[in-house]
Amino acid sequence: MNEQQIRACIDACLACVEACETCATACLDEPDIDMMRACIRLDRDCADVCATTARLLMRGSDLHPQACALCAEACAACAAECGKHDHGHCQRCAAACRACEAACRVLAA
Amino acid sequence: MNEQQIRACIDACLACVEACETCATACLDEPDIDMMRACIRLDRDCADVCATTARLLMRGSDLHPQACALCAEACAACAAECGKHDHGHCQRCAAACRACEAACRVLAA
Amino acid sequence: MNEQQIRACIDACLACVEACETCATACLDEPDIDMMRACIRLDRDCADVCATTARLLMRGSDLHPQACALCAEACAACAAECGKHDHGHCQRCAAACRACEAACRVLAA
Amino acid sequence: MNEQQIRACIDACLACVEACETCATACLDEPDIDMMRACIRLDRDCADVCATTARLLMRGSDLHPQACALCAEACAACAAECGKHDHGHCQRCAAACRACEAACRVLAA
Repeated sequence: MNEQQIRACIDACLACVEACETCATACLDEPDIDMMRACIRLDRDCADVCATTARLLMRGSDLHPQACALCAEACAACAAECGKHDHGHCQRCAAACRACEAACRVLAA
Repeated sequence: MNEQQIRACIDACLACVEACETCATACLDEPDIDMMRACIRLDRDCADVCATTARLLMRGSDLHPQACALCAEACAACAAECGKHDHGHCQRCAAACRACEAACRVLAA
Repeated sequence: MNEQQIRACIDACLACVEACETCATACLDEPDIDMMRACIRLDRDCADVCATTARLLMRGSDLHPQACALCAEACAACAAECGKHDHGHCQRCAAACRACEAACRVLAA
Repeated sequence: MNEQQIRACIDACLACVEACETCATACLDEPDIDMMRACIRLDRDCADVCATTARLLMRGSDLHPQACALCAEACAACAAECGKHDHGHCQRCAAACRACEAACRVLAA
């Protein structure tokens, strides 16, 4: 663990919060919303977990490895679901989740 | 895992958020603030993790066992520190943290 | 403003967070999800604003009157939408939002 | 209000969350912590309000003008306090708060 890894992980978490918020909002406007239920549900969880993890990292909390482990799980689940859908917002969210999962795995307990 | 355990854990998390917020605020007003640094730091983390865990539980997230595992760690660390101090707010916070840790362990992954 | 009003407002905010989280989750499982888009969207905002307001109140923040003003708006918008739907979770959410709006108006700037 | 203003405000809010988290953590390590009580208190509030505002902006919430109004107040209060202290983290936090206040005023109700 070093400063550069922490920095990269904060940035990945914040980008993932935004991708998840954007994706959930866009899913709520999709004509095929019936297919997007799981996506909205997971976006919501992933955004919350990434946001909390980012703040623990910013403040240098000793809990950050355990938070990063949880965050990697949240991101993996969200990426798996978003990756199934062709919508641009889903594909971008899946990519942000995978990047955040990778950054979190580096720091995870 | 059952409804009653989830209910108990949500309530314990919310009580812990409040105990931590109250304790951090009171610590910031203590004449011996120099001794309260770790307490304020851990209250802050514990409140954030308990708040996120409570919301994942409320929404029935599949991530709740992992979130409860993280929350139990946050509570244990905060209880250990708060328990060292005689201030009423610290003792009440330590008790709330221990109760939340126990409720989270029941549901943790 | 007094202790009892603060206490009542914290409790109303926390009850509203839970009602909104529960309602959003249940809406995501409804067969008529096409009708529930606005409800899910507003539940999400209302839960976040109520959660932040509760924590500012718990810590005795000087910002609480302005936060309560924002929270009353969030609750009013969510109650208006949820109140249109016959689902039990929507009706319970509308009631929790109205109660939280009233408690927030007492403390609002 | 336009896309560019929203983008700038999200970025300013996230930068302010990080500046406040960093400042609070650093204040908790300062030898003169007795002087930093108000700074820690306001950093805490400002970080929470900026984080919630950023997420409402990301999701395109109709509540964002009222949230931005609250956020501008939180930032102004925090900037005023942090600006009194010579610590680098305080000066950087004051600057981030002022930038966020300005971006929020553009979008505020």
